[in-house]
Amino acid sequence: MEKTKLNRRKDRIFEIIFEADTYYGKLFDILLLVVIMISVGLVMLESVPMINAKHHKLLVILEWIVTAIFTVEYGFRLYCVRKPWRYFFSFYGIIDLLSILPTYLGIIYPQTKYLSSIRILRLFRIFRIFGLTQFNRGGYTMLIALRKSRAKIVVFLAFVILIVVVIGSIMYVVEGKHPESGFTSIPISIYWAIVTLTTVGYGDIAPVTSVGKFLASVVMIIGYGVIAVPTGIVSAEAMSANLGESKRTTQVCQNCHDQNHEEAANYCKTCGNPLK
Amino acid sequence: MEKTKLNRRKDRIFEIIFEADTYYGKLFDILLLVVIMISVGLVMLESVPMINAKHHKLLVILEWIVTAIFTVEYGFRLYCVRKPWRYFFSFYGIIDLLSILPTYLGIIYPQTKYLSSIRILRLFRIFRIFGLTQFNRGGYTMLIALRKSRAKIVVFLAFVILIVVVIGSIMYVVEGKHPESGFTSIPISIYWAIVTLTTVGYGDIAPVTSVGKFLASVVMIIGYGVIAVPTGIVSAEAMSANLGESKRTTQVCQNCHDQNHEEAANYCKTCGNPLK
Amino acid sequence: MEKTKLNRRKDRIFEIIFEADTYYGKLFDILLLVVIMISVGLVMLESVPMINAKHHKLLVILEWIVTAIFTVEYGFRLYCVRKPWRYFFSFYGIIDLLSILPTYLGIIYPQTKYLSSIRILRLFRIFRIFGLTQFNRGGYTMLIALRKSRAKIVVFLAFVILIVVVIGSIMYVVEGKHPESGFTSIPISIYWAIVTLTTVGYGDIAPVTSVGKFLASVVMIIGYGVIAVPTGIVSAEAMSANLGESKRTTQVCQNCHDQNHEEAANYCKTCGNPLK
Amino acid sequence: MEKTKLNRRKDRIFEIIFEADTYYGKLFDILLLVVIMISVGLVMLESVPMINAKHHKLLVILEWIVTAIFTVEYGFRLYCVRKPWRYFFSFYGIIDLLSILPTYLGIIYPQTKYLSSIRILRLFRIFRIFGLTQFNRGGYTMLIALRKSRAKIVVFLAFVILIVVVIGSIMYVVEGKHPESGFTSIPISIYWAIVTLTTVGYGDIAPVTSVGKFLASVVMIIGYGVIAVPTGIVSAEAMSANLGESKRTTQVCQNCHDQNHEEAANYCKTCGNPLK
Repeated sequence: MEKTKLNRRKDRIFEIIFEADTYYGKLFDILLLVVIMISVGLVMLESVPMINAKHHKLLVILEWIVTAIFTVEYGFRLYCVRKPWRYFFSFYGIIDLLSILPTYLGIIYPQTKYLSSIRILRLFRIFRIFGLTQFNRGGYTMLIALRKSRAKIVVFLAFVILIVVVIGSIMYVVEGKHPESGFTSIPISIYWAIVTLTTVGYGDIAPVTSVGKFLASVVMIIGYGVIAVPTGIVSAEAMSANLGESKRTTQVCQNCHDQNHEEAANYCKTCGNPLK
Repeated sequence: MEKTKLNRRKDRIFEIIFEADTYYGKLFDILLLVVIMISVGLVMLESVPMINAKHHKLLVILEWIVTAIFTVEYGFRLYCVRKPWRYFFSFYGIIDLLSILPTYLGIIYPQTKYLSSIRILRLFRIFRIFGLTQFNRGGYTMLIALRKSRAKIVVFLAFVILIVVVIGSIMYVVEGKHPESGFTSIPISIYWAIVTLTTVGYGDIAPVTSVGKFLASVVMIIGYGVIAVPTGIVSAEAMSANLGESKRTTQVCQNCHDQNHEEAANYCKTCGNPLK
Repeated sequence: MEKTKLNRRKDRIFEIIFEADTYYGKLFDILLLVVIMISVGLVMLESVPMINAKHHKLLVILEWIVTAIFTVEYGFRLYCVRKPWRYFFSFYGIIDLLSILPTYLGIIYPQTKYLSSIRILRLFRIFRIFGLTQFNRGGYTMLIALRKSRAKIVVFLAFVILIVVVIGSIMYVVEGKHPESGFTSIPISIYWAIVTLTTVGYGDIAPVTSVGKFLASVVMIIGYGVIAVPTGIVSAEAMSANLGESKRTTQVCQNCHDQNHEEAANYCKTCGNPLK
Repeated sequence: MEKTKLNRRKDRIFEIIFEADTYYGKLFDILLLVVIMISVGLVMLESVPMINAKHHKLLVILEWIVTAIFTVEYGFRLYCVRKPWRYFFSFYGIIDLLSILPTYLGIIYPQTKYLSSIRILRLFRIFRIFGLTQFNRGGYTMLIALRKSRAKIVVFLAFVILIVVVIGSIMYVVEGKHPESGFTSIPISIYWAIVTLTTVGYGDIAPVTSVGKFLASVVMIIGYGVIAVPTGIVSAEAMSANLGESKRTTQVCQNCHDQNHEEAANYCKTCGNPLK
């Protein structure tokens, strides 16, 4: 009897914290989102030297209050779920933990407390709360396109990693004798190769010799062609997802069993029989 | 009777200012376009220190003349439309107002007057005036592709914003101790993350530590894959728009006059009549 | 009689210079390509201070010899074509003229002679000479895709131009007071907007204020989405061109008049009648 | 008899070194992969001045041990294959040779030894060893898409090369008089054109004159449109490859067992038999 009462209390807490259907559930979630955004703002402000110098104390106090709230909330979450370990190792469970850990770690290693802005990832819940189905579906289609492209993207990235190691080594041999170029070691040269191939191009490291510039030109033109590959892959998959999803119905003509009719079609396009 | 006369005058002004079918209407619009282009040129010239030093007076006078013209024109527009408020809050109404406001505000805050080059947006009218239907249609197809991609693009941008906050914070923790790297606060680090992920790469902020460079490489390679996503989305939508446009026959059903049949269709998809 | 003889001589010269079917015609074209490549190499070498200092005289003499050859060739071309003016104003006619003009202009304005490397465009003839049909077709499909995208690309570029003027002006107002940022005038700010929106990002001009950096971030994220648009357009058209071109035959079924069969099909996919 | 024995021994070595089906074959391959990764790590570490200063001797000794292993392995490979020359000139044969050469060449030209990180390319074997069929297929589809796009990509690159030479020359004429801009010769200007057109944008070379900046803006906006072309090509081909793969039914003709019919097909396209 006692246990049922406890369970009922647990369920009520669960409903408020995890669900967003009831009035209190929604209120809780909205309050949480606001606190998350304020908290991330606080972390950012604290990192700005000028602001921190003026309001250091206030920011630290507020930061600790927020962390306290999040810690209590985390405790309640662990308390009210049926299978605490499953929540603990779930995507949101890990993020919820990572949202409070940095502040505590900040006592020992002061710098780490800035990592607490990771808690912005908790905002992902926003989609679930407000039932933004249209956006959910958009995100879902993209996810499918990405998942289907996974094998190709892994192959592509593996290829890119091999290629930048080779390019980086060659550039180091060519440019390494000129310290003003910035190619001071192979890892740095590989970093340059990545910066160049991805067309980011900071310019802190740039070839100074003629041979180096020629090789860099070749790398850039290759990169020009190569950047087309992941785009092509994702485009093709997104296209397929689009085709498969929105343009056709799965309706089958009862007369000729022709499938794949347009959504707006009333009659079978092959035999002229009415579609229902 | 008086009112009808007034209305008739209003209508004539309306025809000249808003329409481009009559001789005077077209003349007015062309003159307006010329004045807009001259005026934007003036604002630009005024901002160039060397030119402003020489011709300051001339430029200021011309600028005020143009603004006077635009103000009078804006008054007439408000006067001759049937529903002034609807025009006032319309796309062109806001742009027309923003085209004259900065010059007046420039009396109080001198710098703001340069915002008057916003009046270049008035050139959008060019498409309507010259009836560039081919370009209109091109723009329209693009707009449809973009509108259909909207949900996906919003999800994508939300994802990008969350990711740059996390990346920026981590990089601040890693690079923040090295002021020469430029990672002086989390907002600046987020700015760097955006500059890097979009492959702009100014180079004013760049990691100097090994760990920072390694993390930056990971960010860039992720960005490499991520940049493919919006392109893929828009490509897929543009493709669908194209398909919907060009892969159809111009065949008209003789029974129900429905157009836009698929090439492979034998029967009208709307009324079931055979297509020939 | 005299005239016919003259015409026959003209025709023989025409065959050698313009055509690539005969032995001498092909030989002439190959020699020409070699001379063009050597000549472009010469111009480049002359521009390198170190090499020019050593071999100035030799390079100038060789340059003049090449220009003399090209001038004589240009004269012959004008002489042997039936309609000299049509050649004069044709694509190759203009390039051929631009290939010799800079050297002569170099007598008056020394710097302009370096423009003679424009003669590299004469290499476009390479495709015609060697009958690289596969590449010709590849180029042709791309040209069709680009031509079909023309209206959309013009609209897109017009939109980009309007947007960079507005962004440039706003950034000038925000950053103009900080000369170290490099935003010294609206045209320079527009230049920055283009450098940023196209993700080139030199870094010679970069915002220094917080507001400026925030606006720049917005511009970059917009650019991130916007860069997808031309790619999407061209992808879609290239896709359509691919579909329309290589996958289907124009064969019509003699029984049911169904078109659009696959290249490998032996029987009509709709009625089962043999295809011939 | 002796020969058969020798052949049998050769075959056993072949099975271990080249195949990955047997226990020892797999073990050998995994050991090899580990040694390759360690070895590439060594080369990288040696290139870092700080680490090399401390552990120079150790790194050199380990490097020589690894090279000795690879040399012996290369000898065994040459010994056990039936047609040594075919292996010698094969893709992997060349990479295996290039993996050991730089260390030996490093005795004469010390810098070249860093090229030995090319041995990372040996990791390509990873796909064969672990039978990562999913990734193999992904890579294969990409390869087909790239191969089909080959002609178009060659045309595109040829076009890019011609265009950067012309742009580079014009920019040299415009900016060459301003040594602070960095346009010190035509080859350097061409390098700048490539850096700009590919949107890498280091910023070590950047126009300083108004005309130069205007021309650079034009180049960038052109590049903006041009970058869409290879992406469009690859997208279209990837799409076609996808379509060819997934938009077919798995239906098999009961008469001729032909597969891969279109979804809309009623009759077998090869033998004309009705499909059900």
